[in-house]
Amino acid sequence: MVEKGLFITIEGPDGAGKSTVIKKLVEILSRELSQSIVTTREPGGIPISEKIREVILNPTHTMMDERTEALLYAAARRQHLIEKILPALDSGNMVFCDRFIDSSIAYQGAARGIGVKEVRQMNDFAIEGHYPDLTLYLDVEASVGLSRINKGRKEEELDRLDKESLAFHEKVRAAYLDLLEEEPNRIKKIDASESIENVVNNCYTLIKETYPMLFTK
Amino acid sequence: MVEKGLFITIEGPDGAGKSTVIKKLVEILSRELSQSIVTTREPGGIPISEKIREVILNPTHTMMDERTEALLYAAARRQHLIEKILPALDSGNMVFCDRFIDSSIAYQGAARGIGVKEVRQMNDFAIEGHYPDLTLYLDVEASVGLSRINKGRKEEELDRLDKESLAFHEKVRAAYLDLLEEEPNRIKKIDASESIENVVNNCYTLIKETYPMLFTK
Repeated sequence: MVEKGLFITIEGPDGAGKSTVIKKLVEILSRELSQSIVTTREPGGIPISEKIREVILNPTHTMMDERTEALLYAAARRQHLIEKILPALDSGNMVFCDRFIDSSIAYQGAARGIGVKEVRQMNDFAIEGHYPDLTLYLDVEASVGLSRINKGRKEEELDRLDKESLAFHEKVRAAYLDLLEEEPNRIKKIDASESIENVVNNCYTLIKETYPMLFTK
Repeated sequence: MVEKGLFITIEGPDGAGKSTVIKKLVEILSRELSQSIVTTREPGGIPISEKIREVILNPTHTMMDERTEALLYAAARRQHLIEKILPALDSGNMVFCDRFIDSSIAYQGAARGIGVKEVRQMNDFAIEGHYPDLTLYLDVEASVGLSRINKGRKEEELDRLDKESLAFHEKVRAAYLDLLEEEPNRIKKIDASESIENVVNNCYTLIKETYPMLFTK
């Protein structure tokens, strides 16, 4: 029987550097781990989840209510979990997912003001207990995160969330810090204001110290 | 200030005769009521909800998980509530809605086996306390309901839910009867095995006895 893989999520405010960190981290880990690594992010190429995201992101849907949006994100998450994450874990792969339930709690629950408890409870319906084994929270001040986004991308490439105010991003960060306090065993904070090399190295060290048995190559 | 309208839902297993009853009931009521009447059913012509329903009903989405489907129904419900039902009620209209939260509890929660409590809680996120003032539950035995459906429609017109087994429809009915027991003040049972005329008349009498002050014409 194949041992079940480890489920790791990467979280953080916009501009924290999640996708770059995942890419470099996976390059290093794949040379040292016994488990194969699958990296993904919602909607993850799952046709049903992609269709749901099209409904969320359709620019004509200006009337979309915040709770409708939160339910749609949870639906896309559910399908991605069922079709991609769980089968990969069951086959013994380590899964790295860029954003998961904590993003909904921070963005929709806290920053958009629906309510942290409400959004978590509704998402619990979607994930049915499948919380990550480990969540790397890349912490960066909202102003730093936002300036990174604006430097790296052109104005017309910014999406709706990127364009939200600094105050909004500060709420997001505060919510992540609350989650960290609530679930210190699952969520680990990494200082993402440092250089990418240092951030990647700190993530690597954390994983190696937490799961030494996986480093068998 | 306009007085807030009354929110009435019609529920029942397939073949209970809901749409015919609503049509005839509204014809009678509109001659006698002081409130104008809006009749609707999800997705109710709301573009966002229609798009969500397209994702649910897309025949290529054979991989759709039951919880994904339940979340999508709740998302479509939320938007229909926000864009159509609540504004109509706020303008003083009586709203008749063909199926609402109880359908999800009976179909997804009970018959599909997700769990009544789970589906209700998730839908509570969607409706945010906006329960109907009155729910007319058209009660009919599963076998009677199914034979009505099969008589009235051609085989190729039956949708996926219609084609489910009799056992499934019996679970749906049992769930409705449980809801009736839990919420006797909101949900009222109407025997839908009788003739349409009698069913309509019994619904009419119930509404008139419950809300005599509305019958002012």
